Amino acid sequence: MTKVGIINVTGYAGSELVRILYHHPEVEITSVTGRSAAGKRLPEVLPHLWQLDLPITSSVEGSVDVVFSSLPSGASAEALAPLIESGVKTVDIAADFRLHDPLEFKRAYNIDHPAPHLLEKAVYGLPEIHREAINRATLVANPGCYPEAAILALAPAVREGLIIDDVIVDAKSGISGAGRGGLATNSMYHFAEANENVVAYGLDGHGHQPEIAQELAELREAESARVTFVPHLVPMTRGILATCYARLQDETVRKQTVREIYQEFYANEPFVRVTDTPPRTKQTTGSNLCLVYPTVDERAGRLVVVSCLDNLVKGAAGQAVQNMNLMLGFPETVALESLAIYP
Amino acid sequence: MTKVGIINVTGYAGSELVRILYHHPEVEITSVTGRSAAGKRLPEVLPHLWQLDLPITSSVEGSVDVVFSSLPSGASAEALAPLIESGVKTVDIAADFRLHDPLEFKRAYNIDHPAPHLLEKAVYGLPEIHREAINRATLVANPGCYPEAAILALAPAVREGLIIDDVIVDAKSGISGAGRGGLATNSMYHFAEANENVVAYGLDGHGHQPEIAQELAELREAESARVTFVPHLVPMTRGILATCYARLQDETVRKQTVREIYQEFYANEPFVRVTDTPPRTKQTTGSNLCLVYPTVDERAGRLVVVSCLDNLVKGAAGQAVQNMNLMLGFPETVALESLAIYP
Amino acid sequence: MTKVGIINVTGYAGSELVRILYHHPEVEITSVTGRSAAGKRLPEVLPHLWQLDLPITSSVEGSVDVVFSSLPSGASAEALAPLIESGVKTVDIAADFRLHDPLEFKRAYNIDHPAPHLLEKAVYGLPEIHREAINRATLVANPGCYPEAAILALAPAVREGLIIDDVIVDAKSGISGAGRGGLATNSMYHFAEANENVVAYGLDGHGHQPEIAQELAELREAESARVTFVPHLVPMTRGILATCYARLQDETVRKQTVREIYQEFYANEPFVRVTDTPPRTKQTTGSNLCLVYPTVDERAGRLVVVSCLDNLVKGAAGQAVQNMNLMLGFPETVALESLAIYP
Amino acid sequence: MTKVGIINVTGYAGSELVRILYHHPEVEITSVTGRSAAGKRLPEVLPHLWQLDLPITSSVEGSVDVVFSSLPSGASAEALAPLIESGVKTVDIAADFRLHDPLEFKRAYNIDHPAPHLLEKAVYGLPEIHREAINRATLVANPGCYPEAAILALAPAVREGLIIDDVIVDAKSGISGAGRGGLATNSMYHFAEANENVVAYGLDGHGHQPEIAQELAELREAESARVTFVPHLVPMTRGILATCYARLQDETVRKQTVREIYQEFYANEPFVRVTDTPPRTKQTTGSNLCLVYPTVDERAGRLVVVSCLDNLVKGAAGQAVQNMNLMLGFPETVALESLAIYP
Repeated sequence: MTKVGIINVTGYAGSELVRILYHHPEVEITSVTGRSAAGKRLPEVLPHLWQLDLPITSSVEGSVDVVFSSLPSGASAEALAPLIESGVKTVDIAADFRLHDPLEFKRAYNIDHPAPHLLEKAVYGLPEIHREAINRATLVANPGCYPEAAILALAPAVREGLIIDDVIVDAKSGISGAGRGGLATNSMYHFAEANENVVAYGLDGHGHQPEIAQELAELREAESARVTFVPHLVPMTRGILATCYARLQDETVRKQTVREIYQEFYANEPFVRVTDTPPRTKQTTGSNLCLVYPTVDERAGRLVVVSCLDNLVKGAAGQAVQNMNLMLGFPETVALESLAIYP
Repeated sequence: MTKVGIINVTGYAGSELVRILYHHPEVEITSVTGRSAAGKRLPEVLPHLWQLDLPITSSVEGSVDVVFSSLPSGASAEALAPLIESGVKTVDIAADFRLHDPLEFKRAYNIDHPAPHLLEKAVYGLPEIHREAINRATLVANPGCYPEAAILALAPAVREGLIIDDVIVDAKSGISGAGRGGLATNSMYHFAEANENVVAYGLDGHGHQPEIAQELAELREAESARVTFVPHLVPMTRGILATCYARLQDETVRKQTVREIYQEFYANEPFVRVTDTPPRTKQTTGSNLCLVYPTVDERAGRLVVVSCLDNLVKGAAGQAVQNMNLMLGFPETVALESLAIYP
Repeated sequence: MTKVGIINVTGYAGSELVRILYHHPEVEITSVTGRSAAGKRLPEVLPHLWQLDLPITSSVEGSVDVVFSSLPSGASAEALAPLIESGVKTVDIAADFRLHDPLEFKRAYNIDHPAPHLLEKAVYGLPEIHREAINRATLVANPGCYPEAAILALAPAVREGLIIDDVIVDAKSGISGAGRGGLATNSMYHFAEANENVVAYGLDGHGHQPEIAQELAELREAESARVTFVPHLVPMTRGILATCYARLQDETVRKQTVREIYQEFYANEPFVRVTDTPPRTKQTTGSNLCLVYPTVDERAGRLVVVSCLDNLVKGAAGQAVQNMNLMLGFPETVALESLAIYP
Repeated sequence: MTKVGIINVTGYAGSELVRILYHHPEVEITSVTGRSAAGKRLPEVLPHLWQLDLPITSSVEGSVDVVFSSLPSGASAEALAPLIESGVKTVDIAADFRLHDPLEFKRAYNIDHPAPHLLEKAVYGLPEIHREAINRATLVANPGCYPEAAILALAPAVREGLIIDDVIVDAKSGISGAGRGGLATNSMYHFAEANENVVAYGLDGHGHQPEIAQELAELREAESARVTFVPHLVPMTRGILATCYARLQDETVRKQTVREIYQEFYANEPFVRVTDTPPRTKQTTGSNLCLVYPTVDERAGRLVVVSCLDNLVKGAAGQAVQNMNLMLGFPETVALESLAIYP
């Protein structure tokens, strides 16, 4: 059995990793860490994980073959560096290894990159774009939840040159995206404030914008990409829906043509479906699916693509397990086949 | 006392009219109508309106000075036509008199306009743009809830020529926008389906798109306007947030300049506030306010404006009372001064 | 492979059966039926079940070994009768075979029992009480969601004689309990009405009261049981929490003693856990667990037990699969081992 | 104009006081205090109160005629003591002056009472029971939100001797009851945890139990009352619904008799309505109403009463203004006449 360590298991991505890996036939979780929870046992902090009665330690204990980190950005690279250097295969769910350029990282997160020498090892963990590199990687940077939805919505159009280089991503996220620790710093996550409320945020710049731009630029084989990204909080726990807009290169292109391009692009992907009707976030709850619905606003000559996923699964822990499966040579879909919970 | 009739009082806009007008010192509700509820008394159907113990009749009874209709589109013009022709001042909350062109109406709602001869009497009831005309009007078409938010977000930029003619309105609405009758026809409004769910709809065309385009074109003194409009349902009862995007004519224009233009445009408006921080729908719940927050995405040279309001107040019944106040020469803000309920 | 038919697959219990059985290694769903959806394919109606592309027929097609019904009460027995008579093993998720006495059925549901001759075949499908009988049964009446929570909360206390014969069950349920068809008949299920709202219902009698009373009486080996049952709707999709109250026979009994009795009673149950802290419905979402927390209000000499479960899993489809596993001799927990989805 | 000070204006009860008093024709808010927010202006912290642009100070400034406190228990009495002693009329929304016996206070809140010498001045601020005393009071202890709902549900039955001395109050509250500061200490208030979740709490004793018991005992003219009180959190922002259970003294009493007793008891109360159908919390949102629905479970010989209110209005700030109106000789209903916001 492959031995797995989870750093910061008490975060939402961390506990979701436990939920998923608990059913993985090839791996065993042998070490879980926490910060304020160190010293307790996992089910004391997260009673729904009662079947995995492990001690929470302050750092990874024993030898592990793979390690996941769901620490906050900055802290993650610092905790992972020695493990990476000692050869442990690593999936970082934080943002630390996503941007190739440490200056972009500093601009986005307002901290110096704690381990710039490791950046060249890192592969951006979106299998639909970088599967080959992930297969060979020892360090995978799991995508941000918003970029996951946005890039999957736009990749076929960008790669096929359907749209001009000027896209808008208007994304709506459930509150779990803020993480379990968020509430201490922002009363916006208090139920009484978040409920019956929608708000746009990050209007002066959000760390996920350069991540989307980096990947879209790469798909266009260009230096940069023009992207306006506006995230919103909506009163639900899980789910992201991204509505993406871009002018068509050729305004006579019709919906049917666009759909065929998308269907072909994702024909062999186990976790991306091009849907016949506009998708709903609830159709992905608890599953590793990303649903993509491309259409054309013919009056305005514009491509509109709606995509959605569960931000804690395909947008975090599920994607991380998919990456692990690729890195270790397991079938890509192992432990990720649950159907969505609906309603 | 001015006598008021409310047609289809049992709809959400109708019952909201009662809540607001109950405190209006100059008017008295003397007749309320319903369809399936005709024959009952108002508090039997809507117990929270227990203080207004009126019979629900099938058509307006007695003489009234003003009439509001919150019937569905098509049915509304039909019910209103005789009242309008007999000189009763009328505010139509349905869509029937909003579009100047009956062919656009047919395209948008897929029915022949039931009273095209009355269209030239109708004034589009957005006081921030058409106050003078509303003062003199006998028939006011109350704006749709989405257009109300979108036009108020974009009017200063369009009139001042800040942006190119190509805007995107990505709007998020609570479920009450679907009306009280919606649920019979669409399981999407079932709590179990709407909760923990976000969905885009109207992707093949929504009746509010031509309404937004008509008003933006008029503000530009042009024949038409290029508008992509995508509405979304989010799991809350009340509230609309519209995020609007357009390229700046001059990409060197900065946020501060844009803010000053907006502040000046709305300086004397009692119900529109240009906010210092991104607004939240909850800050408008139960009030007649529209909050507007303009900013600039400098990387992309784009204006981004976020606006929000309570879809049943400034987006329906409150706006209708504001229009009535203007039509009858009452102070514009009477009965509309409640602060928002927060949280 | 055992062949399974699901009658009324489009109801919430029906689609939940598909979600669970999809991962069951010993069975194959070969026939699914619907009423208004007959003629369509399953994923057209329920896109989240895209992997099971079966036609929806109006009655069970082909030979099946087991059949589940999630039709409404009354209709279910009628549809099942021929299948039961032809020897197909049957789990009825409706109420039709739960009450032993057809007169109680008529009192509770206000219809004549459609197949009273089959009542004696029926076993009440709560394995924690009737496992032996379920093992041998050909017709199992799956418990109602409320009785499932209430009986599991009270069974140890009743069987051990801890409490007097006078219990109160105050239950709080998510809206999915109303079923997918509910909304056409009751505007209370409209999101705009159910959200930000709590309401008690069934105050003049609810069909689940005699079901709870029947089982508690049997546990006491008495003719009848005194039970006040008040269900409430709370604004969530899934989950039931039952708070149960009864005076202690011996008011000097302490919490610790009660806990030990409960722990012993459920020591070998795979799907009931006696918890150390008050349980939350969310700790059971998507799982087949029932959490039970017994305590004592010492000032009042009263037993208080809080129990919770996912009304569509342990309260419906999961319980039905657990019953099927027992009836067919599969390990009891197959396909039911998923951990809860939290948050 | 009467000058009003509000201590801890940034709490939910504090900001609700501003919302209500803003429309009160006889009073003017002249001083508002905060703790961490001191030094800012009110609309910076609470933008929805933009019309009241007052500085937030650390203690009450200038002379005031009335002061409200919504500080936490313990802190409140300490801050109020000098004001009370200097003759300022005071309404304490905290728990500090509700229990007559300082030992009960210590048991309930686990702190020594900070000003026991003032307890005899304090009147329990429930006008439906203590109106005469409130009229003459200088210090009013505003009831807790749960006791408000529970006592109004049970008072007629207790005073008329309808029930035995052994009641159960099962209460369901929205999350705003936890206060705005709650989230720092309890992740249960995080949207992602509170949403889609119901939980019972206070099972080892809740501070509102002795408050209910004190008032029910007084109504019975007895030393004590036997009360089991179990509060629950449900996923909504505002609203409390209390379901109360007690055995009838005479089990032959019928629902109609009970209803008549309740209707007579509350015949002249402006803010309590005995309803014909089970009430919904949403029917009280934003209003100062308490709805009460008494019925009888005839099988079990039990009185069941359902009551509901808006926990921040009749359960806090609205009740406080009603008390102020009585203390100052204003009409009792001034500023409290808004209809509920529904849906």
